[in-house]
Amino acid sequence: MSAPQTESLLRPAIAAMAGYVPGEQPRDRSYIKLNTNENPLELPAPAIVGALRRLDPNDFSRYPDPLANGVRDAAAALFGVTRDWIIAGNGSDDILTIAIRSFVDRGDTVATVQPSYSLYPVLAAIQDAALIEAPLNADFSLPVDLVEKIQGARLFFLARPNAPTGNSFPIGQVRDICERFNGVVLIDEAYVDFAEDHCAALAKEFPNVIVSRTLSKSYSLAGIRLGYALANPGLIEGMMKVKDSYNVNFVTQKLGEAALRDQAQLKMVVARIKQTRARVTGELRRRGFEVVDSQANFIFAKPPGAAADYFSALKDNGILVRYFTGERTRDYVRITIGTDAEMAEFLNVTDKLLKENT
Amino acid sequence: MSAPQTESLLRPAIAAMAGYVPGEQPRDRSYIKLNTNENPLELPAPAIVGALRRLDPNDFSRYPDPLANGVRDAAAALFGVTRDWIIAGNGSDDILTIAIRSFVDRGDTVATVQPSYSLYPVLAAIQDAALIEAPLNADFSLPVDLVEKIQGARLFFLARPNAPTGNSFPIGQVRDICERFNGVVLIDEAYVDFAEDHCAALAKEFPNVIVSRTLSKSYSLAGIRLGYALANPGLIEGMMKVKDSYNVNFVTQKLGEAALRDQAQLKMVVARIKQTRARVTGELRRRGFEVVDSQANFIFAKPPGAAADYFSALKDNGILVRYFTGERTRDYVRITIGTDAEMAEFLNVTDKLLKENT
Repeated sequence: MSAPQTESLLRPAIAAMAGYVPGEQPRDRSYIKLNTNENPLELPAPAIVGALRRLDPNDFSRYPDPLANGVRDAAAALFGVTRDWIIAGNGSDDILTIAIRSFVDRGDTVATVQPSYSLYPVLAAIQDAALIEAPLNADFSLPVDLVEKIQGARLFFLARPNAPTGNSFPIGQVRDICERFNGVVLIDEAYVDFAEDHCAALAKEFPNVIVSRTLSKSYSLAGIRLGYALANPGLIEGMMKVKDSYNVNFVTQKLGEAALRDQAQLKMVVARIKQTRARVTGELRRRGFEVVDSQANFIFAKPPGAAADYFSALKDNGILVRYFTGERTRDYVRITIGTDAEMAEFLNVTDKLLKENT
Repeated sequence: MSAPQTESLLRPAIAAMAGYVPGEQPRDRSYIKLNTNENPLELPAPAIVGALRRLDPNDFSRYPDPLANGVRDAAAALFGVTRDWIIAGNGSDDILTIAIRSFVDRGDTVATVQPSYSLYPVLAAIQDAALIEAPLNADFSLPVDLVEKIQGARLFFLARPNAPTGNSFPIGQVRDICERFNGVVLIDEAYVDFAEDHCAALAKEFPNVIVSRTLSKSYSLAGIRLGYALANPGLIEGMMKVKDSYNVNFVTQKLGEAALRDQAQLKMVVARIKQTRARVTGELRRRGFEVVDSQANFIFAKPPGAAADYFSALKDNGILVRYFTGERTRDYVRITIGTDAEMAEFLNVTDKLLKENT
C-alpha cells in the first residue's frame, strides 16, 4: 500500500502527469455558477420533461443500444446524412478520447492552438503523444502559417468557436487547413449553436475532418452526457472499434434523441443567450472591460484591474467565473452567460467591486 | 472519402483489429433474451422508482459531480473503506478501459485466462499490447503454474466468477496470485453477488489488486451504465487522471447511489436468481446436458447434440442465448437466468427440440 509501490505500477506517462482539473462544481454552498459554460433554463424543455416521464424503469435492466442508433438518426437528420456518418459519445469528451485513441499512437504528435480547451494537452499526455501548441495571434485569431506549424501531427484539435476566448475563425481559413493538413482535423463545435456558422460541410467534403458536438451547452443537458461526431463513414467505423461497447446509457439516449428532435426549443434558448450576451458585453465594455467578440455562451473579458483579484472577489461574493493562469489568459476571466437574473446580480456585484477599488 | 485514405489515418492497431462484438440487442422482434446476462425483474425496484421520480429536469443543465462522490460513498460503505478507495465508471467496461490505459503502455503485455470475457483481448488490441491467454484446465479451473505463465505482464484480468463458464476459483489460489504476480491484478467481479465469496479483502490487503464491480447484473441496471472499482488509493488516484472528467452522468449517479443503498432489494433478487439457477441446472442435467457449476447469473451448458445447432434452433423459436465459436467454448451455450416464466418457456422449447432430434 506504500506510495512507491503503486507509483511503479502506473504507466510512466500517467505517473508524471497532473490530470485535468475541471471547473469547480461546488456542492457546499450556493453560488451563481458562471464558470463551466452550462446553460441553465428558466424552465426545463417540455420535450425533456416528456421523455423523462415516458421512461419505464423496467427497461433499465437491459443493455442500451450499443450503437445509440436513435441518437445517430436524430443527429444525422440535422445534416442530411445517414447514421453511418455519426458516432455518439458519453459527452463530447468521450468523442475526443475516442478520437485520440483512434488516430494517435504513443510518440505521435497532437496539435492544437494556444490558448484553447485545456483538456487537449491532458488527452495528449495520457496517450503519451508529443504536443504542438501553435500560438494564436494577439487578437486570438489563427496565424496564417498554421498548417506549416502543425504539419506532421496525426490529429489537430481546433475548438471553433474557441474556448476560453469565445471568438470564432473564418471558415475559409479552416477549410484551407482541412485541405492542406495531412492528419485528422477535429473541429470541436461544442459552442457552435451560439455562432454565426458551422463546419459540418467540411466534414462532408474532406475525408480527414471530424466535427464534434455536445448537448451540454446549447441543449442545457450537461448532466446527462451526450456528444456526437459527424465524419466520413471510414473514420466513424474506426472510432466505433475504440469506443466502449455501451458508452451511452439508455436514459441519455432517450432524452438526447428527444432534445435533438426539438430544434424549436434550441432556437429559442440560443436566441435568449445571444441577446443576453450582447447586453452583458455592452455593459462590461461601458465599465472599462476589454471583451473579446463572442460567438459562444460565454465571454472572455479583461477587467480594468487585475483579473485574478476580480475572480477572487467575485467568488467571495457568491459568483463563480473561470480564471486560467496561463500567460495568454491571466489578464482575463471567462464568464458564462447565465439567466437574466444571474447576469443582473453579476453586474451588481461587479459595480460594487469597481466602486470599492476607486 | 475513399476507404484507403481514411484507413491510413487510423492507428495501425485500430485499422487491423476487428472490434468487440457485443451480444445481440435485437430491436426488430421480441425474443426471450437470455444472451447478455442481464437480470430482468418482475417489477422495478422501489428505490429506483423513487429516485427516478425525484429527478428534477432543471438539474440536467449542470455538469454532474466529476468524482461521483455519492456513488463512491455508497460503494465505500459496503466495504468499510473511505471514498478514496473507490472509482466510479460508465459501466465496469469503463473501469476496464481506464485500467488498461493507466497501467499498460504500447508494447507491454496484458494477461488473462482462456476462455474468459471476450472484451479483454479487444482492450489489449486497442492499447497495442501483447496478450497472454493462459489456458484454463479442462474443467475450467486455474492451472497451478498460472503465475509462471503470466509473470512479466503489467496487468492481469481475472473474471471471478469467470465468464462465459460461470465457475469461480478458490480464493486461496487467487490470493497466492495476487501475492506473487508483479503487475496489477484486476479481479472482475461482475457476477460476484451470485457467488459464495468475493475478493474485496484482497484489494484491501495488496497494493496491486483492483476489484471491479458492476450494477448491470445483480442490480438489474445494465441500461444506466454504472460500475466501480475498489483499490488502494494510490491506484485509484492514478486511474482518476485517466478517466473522462464527467464519466458518470447525473441520472446514473442518483439511481446508482439509490440502488447501492438498497441491499435488501439486492439480496432478494439474488436469492431468486440462485433458486432459479439451481432448478434450471437440475432440469438440464436431467435432460442430458453437462452443466458447469455456476456462481453467476448464467449457466454454461453442453447440450446432448451440437451446441451451434441448439443455439440456432433456440433462436428460431424466439429464444436468444449466447454461443462462442472458440475451441474451448464451441460445445457449449451460455444461458442467462431470466424470470421464472422465461426459463419455463426456455425449457419447453428445449424439450420440443430434443424430441425433434430423437
